[in-house]
Amino acid sequence: MQKFTYYTPTQVVFGKETELEAGKLIKKYGGTKALIVYGGGSVVRSGLLNRVKDALSESGVAFAEWGGVKPNPRLSHAQAGAEYAISEKVDFVLAVGGGSTIDTAKGIAHGAANPGTDLWDIWTKKVPLEKSLPVGIILTISAAGSEMSDSAVLTNEEIGKKSRLGTVLNRPQFAIMNPELTYTLPKYQIACGIADIMMHTLERYFIPNQHNRMTDEIAEGLLRTVIDNGRIAVNDGADYDAMSEIMWCGSLSHNDLTGLGRVKDFSVHKFGHALSAKFDVAHGASLTTIWGDWANYVYENDPERFQHYGKAVWGIETEDVKAAAREAIERTVSYFKEIGMPTCLSELGVGILDEETLKKLSLDATMGGTIELSHIRKLNVQDVYQIFCMANH
Amino acid sequence: MQKFTYYTPTQVVFGKETELEAGKLIKKYGGTKALIVYGGGSVVRSGLLNRVKDALSESGVAFAEWGGVKPNPRLSHAQAGAEYAISEKVDFVLAVGGGSTIDTAKGIAHGAANPGTDLWDIWTKKVPLEKSLPVGIILTISAAGSEMSDSAVLTNEEIGKKSRLGTVLNRPQFAIMNPELTYTLPKYQIACGIADIMMHTLERYFIPNQHNRMTDEIAEGLLRTVIDNGRIAVNDGADYDAMSEIMWCGSLSHNDLTGLGRVKDFSVHKFGHALSAKFDVAHGASLTTIWGDWANYVYENDPERFQHYGKAVWGIETEDVKAAAREAIERTVSYFKEIGMPTCLSELGVGILDEETLKKLSLDATMGGTIELSHIRKLNVQDVYQIFCMANH
Repeated sequence: MQKFTYYTPTQVVFGKETELEAGKLIKKYGGTKALIVYGGGSVVRSGLLNRVKDALSESGVAFAEWGGVKPNPRLSHAQAGAEYAISEKVDFVLAVGGGSTIDTAKGIAHGAANPGTDLWDIWTKKVPLEKSLPVGIILTISAAGSEMSDSAVLTNEEIGKKSRLGTVLNRPQFAIMNPELTYTLPKYQIACGIADIMMHTLERYFIPNQHNRMTDEIAEGLLRTVIDNGRIAVNDGADYDAMSEIMWCGSLSHNDLTGLGRVKDFSVHKFGHALSAKFDVAHGASLTTIWGDWANYVYENDPERFQHYGKAVWGIETEDVKAAAREAIERTVSYFKEIGMPTCLSELGVGILDEETLKKLSLDATMGGTIELSHIRKLNVQDVYQIFCMANH
Repeated sequence: MQKFTYYTPTQVVFGKETELEAGKLIKKYGGTKALIVYGGGSVVRSGLLNRVKDALSESGVAFAEWGGVKPNPRLSHAQAGAEYAISEKVDFVLAVGGGSTIDTAKGIAHGAANPGTDLWDIWTKKVPLEKSLPVGIILTISAAGSEMSDSAVLTNEEIGKKSRLGTVLNRPQFAIMNPELTYTLPKYQIACGIADIMMHTLERYFIPNQHNRMTDEIAEGLLRTVIDNGRIAVNDGADYDAMSEIMWCGSLSHNDLTGLGRVKDFSVHKFGHALSAKFDVAHGASLTTIWGDWANYVYENDPERFQHYGKAVWGIETEDVKAAAREAIERTVSYFKEIGMPTCLSELGVGILDEETLKKLSLDATMGGTIELSHIRKLNVQDVYQIFCMANH
């Protein structure tokens, strides 16, 4: 087991009607006026936004609003939100939504606490981030895990670049999780979330074995839980138990617990970020598009790890190590198909790409060819290109 | 899944030589002068105490010392420590040790932040606790889980009562965990720790099934991890991987993660606290002494839960539900014996007890017969007496 730090100070408040506690929690964490950040229609149509406003008013917490967050959220929208937050003199940011809304709220909190600083300079660490406004979450989509994570992703649309900021200041003060708020999601969005949760776990899992038994046990148990409950959820998005398990797994998959004691490897995310920055596709979908080909490209360097995964998660007892590894990959890809996720570029809906586009994507995924991806097998820009080609059908 | 709140703000710093970061961490959490709380010989003999003092001095953190913590720590020692902390004007409490030292440090922190208040009044909630000093931990025994928990237990020796205080103010600011610091523990103490970790998990697990798949997965994975690594550890207490897994499992078993979404049931702890308040026996040993008889007394009310446990943790495939349940109990009791833990009162070293003592213990475990224990089968004071009688050989 390698050295690690584990720090998840976010207070989780989980269960039915917990959104009604928002005002009380904002006050507990020192807020007197909150900027409510949200996306579009469903939060308004469902009446959730009004319920939240009422809850804040009842606790004597003032608020302003910043709606209009889009999937693959834009830097410019967060920057403008930060300026609005400053003008409205808010001291708290409340996200009501999923990963895009939460990441926008984190960006707004950083920008609002550092007036006059360009948000992209913070995001690219040109300017060190030393303070932020406190952030609270009301989660409506189980997927990104951003409600407990130290991570946030924004897209700088001017340069077509999707970039992640990791900082302890990204950990929210509280996360309200009511599984009933996810009942109205379309089936495809539920499936994208399931894929995202699985991928957060798989990315941390496929590292050469470094004797992390408990970390492995949590990851494997989480994958089994999400796989079984995912099947229920895509058929009935209003099954409370299934939606509860998926919601809680979404937070645990990305709060660090599933990767402690070993290096981090988010290589498939790099492929995915390149794809969704260019084509504006759903994050989870961009990951399942690539994972199978990535796995087939790297598994021969550590087939034992894939065999172990196959046995623990899929019950594969095959004794031949490489055959077991291939079976584990096949089962995973089949599951993605079963819940309706794409597993190649045409299924992602971007068609068959030309060589130039594939090369451009490979450069984007490797910071212009300057970094290698993956630990099981080091992937340079040519390897990344090969994997994109494998997925190009 | 029931409503729950999950809040574990303690920063875990895990790995070799992490104790050298103590001064830096105290400063990070606002401390300028720390009271170092510890037990006796080994922390001094091993040179750990001096290394810690040096680390504090290097970071410019002043300190005073409060040694002499005993197992089943005494209220009076914590109360005197709090008075010393006030006289020394410390603003931070650093525990260097295991559960007894940590719980004493928590008591000192509460007492020192509330001058003039009797610590027992705080412990019995006669006086509400609203503030405390920040606490940091350097863990040297994997067992109690107090390094991340909201719990602390002190014994009021004047009235012979061992009592638990649960409060968010019991969560330490940081917990330094270097598995190498546990290398020098005697085999029996390692085994007591393994038992304690298992029991923290089992107590949360044996609740009528309330659809908590992910919580169950974590609990079962944790038990498998501790059982396998426990076998290694009792034979070689200097196996880094085994001691790492046990240490991390110790924290996870008691930071709430293994019991989220269902009611809590610490009934065997109530038997155990009665035993160790009277006989000053090791906490883990007091629990294994009772668990098997407790399980045999209650399992027929929910044999499916015991069967599920047996399959997940011990690989028992027996189809007959009650037979499978009994087998699961037997395997658990056998494991306790295998690692050298007592499974009846004579093995605990208190001899065969007379009727009067057993009745007194039963009253102690049920607050004078005023409360019922367990959720699988409600146990009144007569039931508790029956279970003590079953263990009385």
